[in-house]
Amino acid sequence: MERVYIALLHYPVRQGGRTISSSITNLDIHDLARLAATYGLGAYYLVHPDEGMRGLATEFLSHWFEGAGRLFKPDRTRALEKLIIVKTLDEAIADIKQREGERPYLLATSAALRPKTVTLENIGKLTKKPLLLLFGTADGISEELDDIIDGYAEPIDPGNGYNHLSVRSAASIFIDRLHRVK
Amino acid sequence: MERVYIALLHYPVRQGGRTISSSITNLDIHDLARLAATYGLGAYYLVHPDEGMRGLATEFLSHWFEGAGRLFKPDRTRALEKLIIVKTLDEAIADIKQREGERPYLLATSAALRPKTVTLENIGKLTKKPLLLLFGTADGISEELDDIIDGYAEPIDPGNGYNHLSVRSAASIFIDRLHRVK
Repeated sequence: MERVYIALLHYPVRQGGRTISSSITNLDIHDLARLAATYGLGAYYLVHPDEGMRGLATEFLSHWFEGAGRLFKPDRTRALEKLIIVKTLDEAIADIKQREGERPYLLATSAALRPKTVTLENIGKLTKKPLLLLFGTADGISEELDDIIDGYAEPIDPGNGYNHLSVRSAASIFIDRLHRVK
Repeated sequence: MERVYIALLHYPVRQGGRTISSSITNLDIHDLARLAATYGLGAYYLVHPDEGMRGLATEFLSHWFEGAGRLFKPDRTRALEKLIIVKTLDEAIADIKQREGERPYLLATSAALRPKTVTLENIGKLTKKPLLLLFGTADGISEELDDIIDGYAEPIDPGNGYNHLSVRSAASIFIDRLHRVK
């Protein structure tokens, strides 16, 4: 899965019908880094437009790279080597382009059915490109990204009339499902 | 999946080779409740031996059942209806016995291979009993529970030399995998 990348978007995301930027959550940083390391993904991009928020995340990281965290739980530090903090989705795409020599296929995720839906089983047949999975915080990725998104992964919905997984759960399930068909 | 139950154990769990009790984490409460609601599980037991910790969790819940949370994000409240806070694993087992008329099959999870390993595909064939999946916080479930555990689910290990998922990720993946074979 080293040609599979993930990005956690804090902007542009939806909340209450509006496009907002959401706050960075410490456990998102760790959970998705550990997921990326466990499944051997290429990198995990934390995307936030605000310099202060990116600075806060960098400060958290210093505990794991320079502070006591490295001694206390070295496994956390190893996972965080997957993490790259960027300002925009375009920066993440440019970084992958530089590593892979081509633009990644942008596979977005959503709890609801969206246009351009593809099944994970079909992704392998659709593209030999590197893959960038996009996860939205708050109420999900804003429609304004629809034009640059190549496809939306089929939603996880077991059909119980409730479908509100945390982004940590949803990302874990999407990556595990993708791993099973890759 | 209404005959599948989950329990998040804060005691007895391991850390640094010793058996400890771990602290309750707010996001564990929400993420696993949302997972339980999305997959239509029977209930989610939060197990902690300490009265103060259970009291703190109950206080968090009041925000969602009596406070502003219910108005702000009613979906969170609905998910938390799956949550039952108990003192011991025995209490959770007794509650399931009362609901189901029989003792559940205790299926523990671990990042490492443990005795009595079963594949999720085999669980359906092994038992028609209700199922209680056990998840350990900290470094996982203490061996002292091995005698009452009926089986350990095969670890999630994609084989990349790193296998340290958060309990939120691991629980999500186990439940999704179980859903696919149930």
